[in-house]
Amino acid sequence: MRIVLDAMGGDHAPQATVEGGVWAARKYGLEVVLVGKRDTLNSELANYDTSSLSLQIVHASQVLEMEAEPAYAARTKKDSSMVVGMDLVRAGKAEAFYSAGHSGGVMAAALFRLGRIPGIRRPAFSLVFPTSKGHCVLLDVGANTDCKAEWLLQFGIMGSIYAEKLLGVQEPSVGIVSNGEEEGKGSALVKEAYQLLKASHLNFIGNVEGKDIPMGLADVVVTDGLTGNVIVKLSEGLSKFLTGVIEKEIKSSPLTALGGLLARPAFARARRVLDYTEIGGVPLLGIDGVVIVGHGRSNAKAIMNGIGVAKRAVEGGMLQAISESLQDTGL
Amino acid sequence: MRIVLDAMGGDHAPQATVEGGVWAARKYGLEVVLVGKRDTLNSELANYDTSSLSLQIVHASQVLEMEAEPAYAARTKKDSSMVVGMDLVRAGKAEAFYSAGHSGGVMAAALFRLGRIPGIRRPAFSLVFPTSKGHCVLLDVGANTDCKAEWLLQFGIMGSIYAEKLLGVQEPSVGIVSNGEEEGKGSALVKEAYQLLKASHLNFIGNVEGKDIPMGLADVVVTDGLTGNVIVKLSEGLSKFLTGVIEKEIKSSPLTALGGLLARPAFARARRVLDYTEIGGVPLLGIDGVVIVGHGRSNAKAIMNGIGVAKRAVEGGMLQAISESLQDTGL
Repeated sequence: MRIVLDAMGGDHAPQATVEGGVWAARKYGLEVVLVGKRDTLNSELANYDTSSLSLQIVHASQVLEMEAEPAYAARTKKDSSMVVGMDLVRAGKAEAFYSAGHSGGVMAAALFRLGRIPGIRRPAFSLVFPTSKGHCVLLDVGANTDCKAEWLLQFGIMGSIYAEKLLGVQEPSVGIVSNGEEEGKGSALVKEAYQLLKASHLNFIGNVEGKDIPMGLADVVVTDGLTGNVIVKLSEGLSKFLTGVIEKEIKSSPLTALGGLLARPAFARARRVLDYTEIGGVPLLGIDGVVIVGHGRSNAKAIMNGIGVAKRAVEGGMLQAISESLQDTGL
Repeated sequence: MRIVLDAMGGDHAPQATVEGGVWAARKYGLEVVLVGKRDTLNSELANYDTSSLSLQIVHASQVLEMEAEPAYAARTKKDSSMVVGMDLVRAGKAEAFYSAGHSGGVMAAALFRLGRIPGIRRPAFSLVFPTSKGHCVLLDVGANTDCKAEWLLQFGIMGSIYAEKLLGVQEPSVGIVSNGEEEGKGSALVKEAYQLLKASHLNFIGNVEGKDIPMGLADVVVTDGLTGNVIVKLSEGLSKFLTGVIEKEIKSSPLTALGGLLARPAFARARRVLDYTEIGGVPLLGIDGVVIVGHGRSNAKAIMNGIGVAKRAVEGGMLQAISESLQDTGL
């Protein structure tokens, strides 16, 4: 399997991307195509023993960064690592694309070079969210701020396939985020999408409230991109806040401080549960190609894990499953 | 000062409400008017020594519960404790109303009997949210799922006054919840409200992301009722989830378990930071009267604290300040 790595994408590129790419090639035994400035990448690669690995550099002279108009930038910066990387997937020269670069840029380049799966109205960023039962798939987490009910239905379909193919969940339960559990609670959009989801072939369980998400009530949690983004980022902020409060309280007396010292390994393990580097990347669902987006702050481990997500998406046949499911529902 | 307590409202009424009312009368030295079924309340009151306290019962034969159509219920159940209680405020016989009953019912009864402050388009539930810098005021947290930009501006104005009068914040900073910090990020609604807030007299600091809320970036956080509700309930669920994960990890080895035992007082203090019983109640801002709503699961302590919130709202002159601020802005 050959996976394209946008070696110029992310806050710690190209050091972290090249290191993560080397690790991924070693760990997963696959071919990693590093796209970016050849000289830069060659000198980074010189730091590693790559003799037994399948690594390849494809030159791209430009970088798609935090652009004001990502769609315009993707169309004009045709020699950017994102566009060149997507073209390798489009031409069948690689099975998947991974980037920890600006997510708006990845989406623009993906729409521009790979396009949508026929029938899909909008692609969506999906995220694997930790719950007390394991994980759930949350989408959209930022691609579409103003949604239509039909798009939310499609997010439910794509999320279900993701949960099935990548997380191994049988008949995943699907919920829609609302401000109350009863049918009829929610915005006009939520109420309309509720009816579409209810009438679909999905295992729809109705509204889920904020508190139900970490409790694992639904395997797939559908919402618009603004609310989804708030859910993800609030969780990040709240984890920091809560662990900060606990740490401060522990340090406030010698006895609790001793307890905290002894319990430290437990805290480290707990922190890992919510650590984005463990997940590495989220699929941009609905694009006609496997596109995985990593956190901008990704370190080498996160990059490696993100390439692992790409590998599992290819092996699981996620893309084909989404197209087939859409044909079944006649959407 | 005389405060009306809906003695029939909440999951633990009338035991918790009567006990909380007794405690509040004692702690704050104010007069508490218990509204509900006279016989029930008299027999509950018999459990306490109330000889030195100002407590009064006003009879109401009905209870406004989780009704399918709260607005209709408020209009037809005219002898419900909520409607009778609101009427005492309306007639000037009490300065504030507190209930831990169904929030939709409280809002319907408040709109029906007290109405809105002239100029206010929609009332909003506001919540004091803990942050690493202290607290912020978050609104709307559930009264309005589909909002207009102008309502969000008014939420900003009301939240600012709340932060100033009840939390003592000078020139509170106001942010609007969005999926990115840059101007131009967000839904059509957020972008429109952004411009209105920017043009207002408020200390507007722009968009805030989910992670910024617990970090205390803004003193007042404006959002629609669906997103606000998700923020509050997700925080509740996530706190439970995270402390659950930490507890599980601590118990997994004898050494960390010992550490956990020693650190237990610190955990208890940390838990209090996010404990709703410490806050007790949130004002229904925009109603022409001081109306405080408590959590349905309120225990006696939460009821007492909720009555304390009502007291501070009256003392701070919150109601008058909101009307005056609206006149200033010509809304």
